Amino acid sequence: MKTINIGILGYGVVGAGVAKLLKQKKQLLESRTGAVLNLKTIADIDTATNRGIDLGTTALVSDANVVMDDPAIDIVVETIGGETIAREFILKSLENKKHVVTANKALLASFGNDLVTAARKNQVDLAFEASVGGCMPVIKFLRESLVANDIKSMSAILNGTCNYILTKISKDGSDFEDALRKAQELGYAEAEPSLDIDGFDTAHKLAILNSLAHGMEINLKDIYVEGIRNITPKDIEFAKDFGYIIKLLAIGKIHEDYVEARVHPTMISSSNPLSHVDGSMNAIAIDADATGQTILYGHGAGMMPTASAVLSDIADIARNIISGIKRRVPILGYPEDNIKSIPILPMEELYTKYYLRFEAQDHPGVLAKISGILGENNISIKSVHQKGRKSNGKVPIVMITHTAREAGVQHALKQISKTDSVVGRPVVIRIEEIAEE
Amino acid sequence: MKTINIGILGYGVVGAGVAKLLKQKKQLLESRTGAVLNLKTIADIDTATNRGIDLGTTALVSDANVVMDDPAIDIVVETIGGETIAREFILKSLENKKHVVTANKALLASFGNDLVTAARKNQVDLAFEASVGGCMPVIKFLRESLVANDIKSMSAILNGTCNYILTKISKDGSDFEDALRKAQELGYAEAEPSLDIDGFDTAHKLAILNSLAHGMEINLKDIYVEGIRNITPKDIEFAKDFGYIIKLLAIGKIHEDYVEARVHPTMISSSNPLSHVDGSMNAIAIDADATGQTILYGHGAGMMPTASAVLSDIADIARNIISGIKRRVPILGYPEDNIKSIPILPMEELYTKYYLRFEAQDHPGVLAKISGILGENNISIKSVHQKGRKSNGKVPIVMITHTAREAGVQHALKQISKTDSVVGRPVVIRIEEIAEE
Repeated sequence: MKTINIGILGYGVVGAGVAKLLKQKKQLLESRTGAVLNLKTIADIDTATNRGIDLGTTALVSDANVVMDDPAIDIVVETIGGETIAREFILKSLENKKHVVTANKALLASFGNDLVTAARKNQVDLAFEASVGGCMPVIKFLRESLVANDIKSMSAILNGTCNYILTKISKDGSDFEDALRKAQELGYAEAEPSLDIDGFDTAHKLAILNSLAHGMEINLKDIYVEGIRNITPKDIEFAKDFGYIIKLLAIGKIHEDYVEARVHPTMISSSNPLSHVDGSMNAIAIDADATGQTILYGHGAGMMPTASAVLSDIADIARNIISGIKRRVPILGYPEDNIKSIPILPMEELYTKYYLRFEAQDHPGVLAKISGILGENNISIKSVHQKGRKSNGKVPIVMITHTAREAGVQHALKQISKTDSVVGRPVVIRIEEIAEE
Repeated sequence: MKTINIGILGYGVVGAGVAKLLKQKKQLLESRTGAVLNLKTIADIDTATNRGIDLGTTALVSDANVVMDDPAIDIVVETIGGETIAREFILKSLENKKHVVTANKALLASFGNDLVTAARKNQVDLAFEASVGGCMPVIKFLRESLVANDIKSMSAILNGTCNYILTKISKDGSDFEDALRKAQELGYAEAEPSLDIDGFDTAHKLAILNSLAHGMEINLKDIYVEGIRNITPKDIEFAKDFGYIIKLLAIGKIHEDYVEARVHPTMISSSNPLSHVDGSMNAIAIDADATGQTILYGHGAGMMPTASAVLSDIADIARNIISGIKRRVPILGYPEDNIKSIPILPMEELYTKYYLRFEAQDHPGVLAKISGILGENNISIKSVHQKGRKSNGKVPIVMITHTAREAGVQHALKQISKTDSVVGRPVVIRIEEIAEE
């Protein structure tokens, strides 16, 4: 039986998960792939901490070069994370003709095009099923299964921390800070939670999905990103009255010669399957022209779900090695020469529906004033409600608009804020009507 | 650019869908695979009907041998259906060293092991992503993505006709016959609906999934099958009172040295994600040890979703041909020599929870009589309700049991039926508590 040698860079949670699966599922993996997937070496600056895994003959070393320079190692698994050392190590591994498997979405989103180029130059593979949606096979689905489809749109819940917090606020009326603290206690949120709750992690994943869906270069910098810090129990409550649930969505849509790519809190109908995705679970809805809507639902993070996805990449590469081939499926789903540069629609050009909430003075004429300014900006109101009781002489006014232009909405809200009719910043939450069948 | 020649056997709905995608998405497929996927020939006994597809240079012939004997054809797509001619044609195509793609679950469930053996003998591929779950990538997920997982259980809604009918009864209180008629009007149900509504189609699909999940031979004959003909609006209503939804589920579970494999109407909690799968949609929940629960949701049938899955198989085989390899992933996920024969638990040995409904005489002592017989058969009752009003002197008594043995339940119900306490056949619906996280 052929032996495929594997090296892991980074022995943290994901690295340990991968090591654990390679050890525990040795027999299963041999039975399925017909090869020995041998974990030869793990490199981490911390070689002292006991991760509770019986490494057997696997070497644990502190110098990553021991992995990267080992001519016997076929596949390097990068689980260090971040965009500095991980990038350097992946590039060096590719230069040394190693196939690379990574879950590093931040790195892929920022430097993925360079990594793809380096993999091509060195004629090796770069695989990243674990980078988006944890154990859900979304990369494989986009790269392989949907090969005869044009992807029309994607809507996805890609960050378990945000979804846990929004679910918590929704189910028990916690405010954001309490829900965040609870998420941190349970280990769903980091001590420094910005990457998650400000939407950046979701944007990294959307950049990768967009590239695979549309055969375009990975483009992170033009994705609009807005996190969930300002979501209040009040808005979640009002949303419910309109039949909406608030989720942090990654939205990607193809148009004639541009794509939409945006991450923000979004109101979706409670009849939309994504509205039932609660807690730390993730889900990805993909609407393609032949398939219609397909949804993948599962654990988007965590030690073993992530390790499972890494193992699927390792097995794929192992099957190639056994067959004597490489680079069987293009890294981004299209051969590099066919990857296009498709522009992302500037956010101010977006047309969508909006939920608006104002803390209005309880004066006659306030509603006329607000709706007048909205009208001047070509925003027409579908429904308006005065919600709840007044407090300190203010009444909440909540509106749902018809489709309007983002630039117009932002301009109108600035004008309204300047009047003495409202207090504080108006709340704006975009509404998404996902194709339902 | 390399040309891969494709022949289609059967120019019905699915065959036409495949032809349509091959024609319409010619450029996309070339751009993604780097090969020309050329639809060389279609064979169907009916060459007269216009399917509205511009066939260009593709030949439409009435003799299947023109496809099967053509040395230029690399891939044969079988879309005839059924277990007679389709079987003969697939075997001949395999003998002629053609790779075969099929969506024929009935054939695979009954003769799949033979087809796998024939494909092995002739060293060609046999692919069937479209056979289960339409466009959902469940075959790929089980064969490739979950390679490092032991699959603990699967619960799936695999038949759109049944799910449409159950949803219809549930949402508007139609009775079964009306709901079936409506499904037939909408084209969701055949004029001869037995294959769907009696659960056989679902069982075919479960036989395939079980094999892939557990590395076992395809075994249809030992799967317990019960359809939805006897589901009444009343039971759906009563189920709701207990927090349950009724779905026709395919259930597969691994135990120490056997598997459970059964198809029957099942009560699941309304907090279970499968309970929200409505209308003709399908969903497959897979609980594996590393991933936890993952769910795929989408169109399980229909011309274009099915064609999309066929195309994903074609592209996979095309990528192999371009790379000069074949049989890269074992047909059933495990190399043939590693496929085991795992017995299916006889239904009478099943332990689960039950919903029972009796039409009882409105006499004193009836409940004591029924619960006495249940107790004698080691069935303990979790809750009991007298539901609704009496009509004609009968009152409906509804019970939820604790976990009990199927043989005991069946025996008790026979005894109860023989008493003068109840009228007609008691209703039994099994309850499934799917692992939720």
